[in-house]
Amino acid sequence: MTRLAALREATAAAGIGALLLTPGPDLRYVTGYEALPLERLTCLVVPAAGEAFMVVPRLELPAAEHSPAARLGVEFVPWDETDDPYALVARRIGPVADVGLADRMWAMQSLRFRDVLPEARQLLAGSVLRDLRMTKSPAEVDALREAGAAIDAVHALVPGLLKAGRTEREVGRDIAEAIVAAGHETVDFVIVASGPNGASPHHELSQRVIQAGDPVVVDIGGRMPSGYCSDSTRTYSVGEPPADFAAYYEILRRAQDAACAAVRPGVSCESVDAAAREVITEAGYGEYFIHRTGHGIGLETHEEPYIVAGNTEPLVPGHAFSVEPGVYLPGRHGARIEDIVVCTPSGAERLNVRPRELVVV
Amino acid sequence: MTRLAALREATAAAGIGALLLTPGPDLRYVTGYEALPLERLTCLVVPAAGEAFMVVPRLELPAAEHSPAARLGVEFVPWDETDDPYALVARRIGPVADVGLADRMWAMQSLRFRDVLPEARQLLAGSVLRDLRMTKSPAEVDALREAGAAIDAVHALVPGLLKAGRTEREVGRDIAEAIVAAGHETVDFVIVASGPNGASPHHELSQRVIQAGDPVVVDIGGRMPSGYCSDSTRTYSVGEPPADFAAYYEILRRAQDAACAAVRPGVSCESVDAAAREVITEAGYGEYFIHRTGHGIGLETHEEPYIVAGNTEPLVPGHAFSVEPGVYLPGRHGARIEDIVVCTPSGAERLNVRPRELVVV
Repeated sequence: MTRLAALREATAAAGIGALLLTPGPDLRYVTGYEALPLERLTCLVVPAAGEAFMVVPRLELPAAEHSPAARLGVEFVPWDETDDPYALVARRIGPVADVGLADRMWAMQSLRFRDVLPEARQLLAGSVLRDLRMTKSPAEVDALREAGAAIDAVHALVPGLLKAGRTEREVGRDIAEAIVAAGHETVDFVIVASGPNGASPHHELSQRVIQAGDPVVVDIGGRMPSGYCSDSTRTYSVGEPPADFAAYYEILRRAQDAACAAVRPGVSCESVDAAAREVITEAGYGEYFIHRTGHGIGLETHEEPYIVAGNTEPLVPGHAFSVEPGVYLPGRHGARIEDIVVCTPSGAERLNVRPRELVVV
Repeated sequence: MTRLAALREATAAAGIGALLLTPGPDLRYVTGYEALPLERLTCLVVPAAGEAFMVVPRLELPAAEHSPAARLGVEFVPWDETDDPYALVARRIGPVADVGLADRMWAMQSLRFRDVLPEARQLLAGSVLRDLRMTKSPAEVDALREAGAAIDAVHALVPGLLKAGRTEREVGRDIAEAIVAAGHETVDFVIVASGPNGASPHHELSQRVIQAGDPVVVDIGGRMPSGYCSDSTRTYSVGEPPADFAAYYEILRRAQDAACAAVRPGVSCESVDAAAREVITEAGYGEYFIHRTGHGIGLETHEEPYIVAGNTEPLVPGHAFSVEPGVYLPGRHGARIEDIVVCTPSGAERLNVRPRELVVV
C-alpha cells in the first residue's frame, strides 16, 4: 500500500473530510515531491472520500510532473497567476466538517482556507500523519543509518580541525564542507560552541578564538539525498579541560548511556527522559540540564516523538529519536552527547557510534 | 523611531489587540533576531497597548540575549520544557478581539493560539507590517544594492562555467560556490535550465548534459550577511542558438526594458506587468509568458509588492521588486531576463546591471 493510500484510509478513519498538504515534510512524506515553499499555493488535497488531487501553480507544473508525485497517479490541477487557488480547492472538496492542515502550513495560507471553508473546523494533518511518520519502515531506518554514518565520518575529522587559535567560525566552515563531502545534500546546522559559549545549547558560530583548555560542544547535522536527516553531538576538549568540567562530563556520559539503555518497546518517552535526568540530578547537576532529552528525527530534524517529561507515548519498534542530555554552566562551559537511536524489539540501536569518552585534542 | 515603535503605532492604528511574531522574516524585520524556526515556541508579542515581550524557550535564552532583540529593551519571558508557552502568552495579553499572526506562522502554532485565545479573530500581521516592510529605507536599498552587485559578480563568471559536455548539476555546484565566494551567507537557489529544461521556470538542477546550441536559463540568488536577498536571471547560449529561440529573445529583452521603463511613483503594479506582457503578446508569444512579471524582494526573496495583473497597489519610492518576464516553449527551450529594481522619485533604478543581450558562450 502506498503512503498516500494509507493516509487516505487513516483520514477516513479519523472522520476528517480532507487533508490539505502544502510544501514541507508532510507533503514530501506522502508524495516524495520537494515542492518549493513559495507564496503561490501548491497543495495536495487528500479527501476521505474520492481521489486525491494537487493544486499547482502553472509555472510549477513541469516540476510537479517530473517529481515522484506524478507516479502516484494524483491529478494535477494547475492554476494561473490571476486565479484564486483557495476557492478552487473549496469548490472541489465541497462542504466538509473538518480539514487537516499540514503542520507547517503558513498562516497566510491557513487563514485563506479558513475564509473559503468557513464551516470547516481546522485541525492538524499531523493528527493523522503522526503515527505513519513516527514509525519508520526498514527502508527509512536504512536511510537514517546512512545519515548517521555520514555525520559520524564528519565527527571523525573534527579532532583535526579543532585547534587553539582558530575561531569557531573557521572550524565551522570546515565542518560544513565536510558535511557535504560526506554525502549530505544540505548542511542544516553547525554548532561549534567553545568555552563559555558551550553553556548556550543553540549557540551560533562566532568569531571567538578557541583557547587551550576549552571544552567545545560540536553539534552538527544535514539532510541526505534520501531526504533523511543526521544529527549528532560530541564534546571535545582542546588540551586538558578545567577540573569542574571533568567533574560532570563523566556523569553526562553515564546519563546518556542510561537513557539509551531505557529504550525498548512499551516504555514511555518521558521515562527515557527521566532515565537521563535522574543520573544528572542525583549528581547535583539537575538544574543545569535545561532541555528535554531528545526529539524524533526523519524527514525533519525535529519531529515526533519528543523525549520529554509529560509525553506518555509508548515507544514502538521503528521510533527514531535523539538521546542528547546536556549540562550547561552559565559563564563557564557546557557539554552534550547526542546519538540518534532507533527503537527495535530488543532495545535501542544507536545510529551514531563515535566514541563518547571525552576526546582531548 | 525604531521599527518596533513604528509597528506598535501601526498595530494600535489598525485596531488589532496584539501581533504574534514567530521566527521568520517578520520577526527578523522588527528585531533583527534570526531565531531558529523550531517547534518550541519563540514569539514576540506586540500589544497595541503595553510593552512588547518575547516568549523564549529556556535553552534559546542565551541566543536571544546575544541577538539584536536584546538591544530593543524587550522583556524576555523564558519558558521551561514542560510549560505551555501558548497559555503563557494568552494570560499575559488578556482578552483581545483580534490578533495578527506572522504571515509564516506554522499551523501547529496558529491552531494552538486559536485554542488558547478562542475569542480572538486571527488576522495576518502582514496587514500591519506590509507597508513598513514593502517601502525600503535608504539603508535597506543599500543592502539590496550590495546584494545585486554580489550576484552580478557571479553572473560575470557564468560564461566561463557553461560548456557543452558539462551537466547542469556540475555547473550549478560551481555557481553555488561562487555565490558564497561573492559574499552571500546562504545560497537560496541555483537554476541552470538547459535546452528543453529552460521551458520549466523553476527547473531543478539535473544530470542533463549541456549540448552545443542549448539556450540556458541561469536564475540565481542568495542571502547576504545583512539579511537581504539577491535574485537575478540571465539567459545564455552555448554556441549559436536555434533560430526559433533567437526569434523571441529580442522581444523578451524589449519587454523587460518596457517594464523597467514603466516603473515610477503612482504607477500600479499591474501596469508594470502589462508593460512587459503587451510587448510579448503583440509579438505572438503571450501564451508562453506563463507567470507574473515580478515579486517584491527584501528579507525574503518573494514578498510584496507582487507585479501581477489585479494588483492595483501604486508604486512609491522605496518599493523594490524583480522585473522578470519570460518566454517558455514546452519541449523546446525558454528564456528569462531578471533585474531587481527600486522605485525612485524619477523611475526605476536597476540593481542588476549585467548585459541583457544574449551572451553566446
